[in-house]
Amino acid sequence: MNEFELIRCLTRDLPTNESVVVGAGDDCAALEIGDAERLLLFKTDAVVEGIHFTRETPPEKIGRKALARCLSDIAAMAGTPTAAVVTIALPKKFEPEFVEKIYAGLNALAERHGVAIVGGETTTNPERVLISVALVGFVARKKMLLRSGAKVGDAIFVTGELGGSLAGRHLDFEPRLAEARWLAENFSIHALMDVSDGLAGDLRHILAASKVGAEVLKSAVPISRAAKQNAKRGDAAKPAFVAALTDGEDFELLFTVASRDAVPLLDAWKKKFPALKLSCIGRIIAREGITLREKAGTRLLSAQGYAHFS
Amino acid sequence: MNEFELIRCLTRDLPTNESVVVGAGDDCAALEIGDAERLLLFKTDAVVEGIHFTRETPPEKIGRKALARCLSDIAAMAGTPTAAVVTIALPKKFEPEFVEKIYAGLNALAERHGVAIVGGETTTNPERVLISVALVGFVARKKMLLRSGAKVGDAIFVTGELGGSLAGRHLDFEPRLAEARWLAENFSIHALMDVSDGLAGDLRHILAASKVGAEVLKSAVPISRAAKQNAKRGDAAKPAFVAALTDGEDFELLFTVASRDAVPLLDAWKKKFPALKLSCIGRIIAREGITLREKAGTRLLSAQGYAHFS
Repeated sequence: MNEFELIRCLTRDLPTNESVVVGAGDDCAALEIGDAERLLLFKTDAVVEGIHFTRETPPEKIGRKALARCLSDIAAMAGTPTAAVVTIALPKKFEPEFVEKIYAGLNALAERHGVAIVGGETTTNPERVLISVALVGFVARKKMLLRSGAKVGDAIFVTGELGGSLAGRHLDFEPRLAEARWLAENFSIHALMDVSDGLAGDLRHILAASKVGAEVLKSAVPISRAAKQNAKRGDAAKPAFVAALTDGEDFELLFTVASRDAVPLLDAWKKKFPALKLSCIGRIIAREGITLREKAGTRLLSAQGYAHFS
Repeated sequence: MNEFELIRCLTRDLPTNESVVVGAGDDCAALEIGDAERLLLFKTDAVVEGIHFTRETPPEKIGRKALARCLSDIAAMAGTPTAAVVTIALPKKFEPEFVEKIYAGLNALAERHGVAIVGGETTTNPERVLISVALVGFVARKKMLLRSGAKVGDAIFVTGELGGSLAGRHLDFEPRLAEARWLAENFSIHALMDVSDGLAGDLRHILAASKVGAEVLKSAVPISRAAKQNAKRGDAAKPAFVAALTDGEDFELLFTVASRDAVPLLDAWKKKFPALKLSCIGRIIAREGITLREKAGTRLLSAQGYAHFS
């Protein structure tokens, strides 16, 4: 049983109440707060030493990443973050300076996005550092974007470049908050999420939630320089395109929009965010799964994905 | 540097914004949500294997405790919990059934208190299970109770009995949500918190936040049966009174009220909650610290507390 199967199993029968507009399964939960205009967004995420960072990672970047991941989930709903609480689990012997630097990195990012840190707990985790962040924010009820709205015929877009994030970007990526809000305010976006587990896996989340499929044009997928450099390293390395599909930790925006809006959106984007690439990588189709189109023709991307490309 | 010193250091300069009514340092944060009547409460807490539970603890009770601790913090503000998100960090090899049982215990308590579980993440923590819960709730703006309102002359009350919680109660305590709301609605409570680190330590939090001191009547402190039984075990055991002051994990309510309200409150309590003991354990005084009154006279309880009683 892998992580996704377990989560699916556990989130089948979660307790709910009348405040819940969106429960487990999207990037954030959305809750009623008795406001006709706005919903509350609620999200938690954790980073663990040896998995999301190493003992050598500068502590400022650890703290930054712990918050940035949650901010990216608020972006994925087109929301605005408001306040976070932080739990740092630490080995019994630690340098106070280490923890101060974790907070320094976290606080700096929080300040830049206007986020208040309203609780800071510490507890013990003897073998490794673990940081859990929970975040609340708001979203305009009519502008909230879910994974479930993709429609057959939609164009599929992704921001930035994918793959190779572990070479460094995973520690200093920018949560796409402003970009997501701009998209929600200016275009009729049908589905939105952030790419955290890799394009192949995350696109499947949109497809499953929307009950559609996708055709992805191989040559249109934006591949990062880091993924290309990694691929040159030798036989053991993933091909760059596979890295772009499966590396994860990209924290870019993945969204769909009616095909008639695709060109106007791309034009407006280039004016608004000239420094951030936006790529149309394919379209939503009725056939389930991800169909990959390349020169030689099309083929279905298996659930395991990259094994077929190695 | 101990946990409290570290937290004090780290929470000195946390980023804030105009939504923050109560930031780090009380039982929960309280945030503006654009509602004239209500504030949002926000809290996180974690339990760790080997610290808050053991490998032998029934998993249902682990899940229950993880949520119950957060619920107790909402009670400590006289609030009502609404929704929680849960992160479970697990060793790579685990029994899905174990995790299902954690959720079963957590979900049952959530349902009983009308709390929705709106996010369930899993991550890896190779050596031990760690569960982090974040909780939001609401509180009537005018009925919210903080640690900072104690006034000289106030009577100090505590619910239930203290000490010896690790003998079992820490796994099945009832968060005092209904009791706290009843107190806030029916009496002018000056300061409220939950007793999680032990009476001696937690009372000091009220005293520090309110800039007052306390005189505690030794014979009035309610000592649990478990603490008394532990004390009989031999020379290595803590005296029962010391256990009541320092064991922690009691999750009872500690509050202060004007002395003229003490008797009416006690009378009304007995009618409303006949099964739950309420004890007046002393009064708020101007002299800083905790003064202990016993037959032989009074003495100041040291910050280290129980060393003096052994």
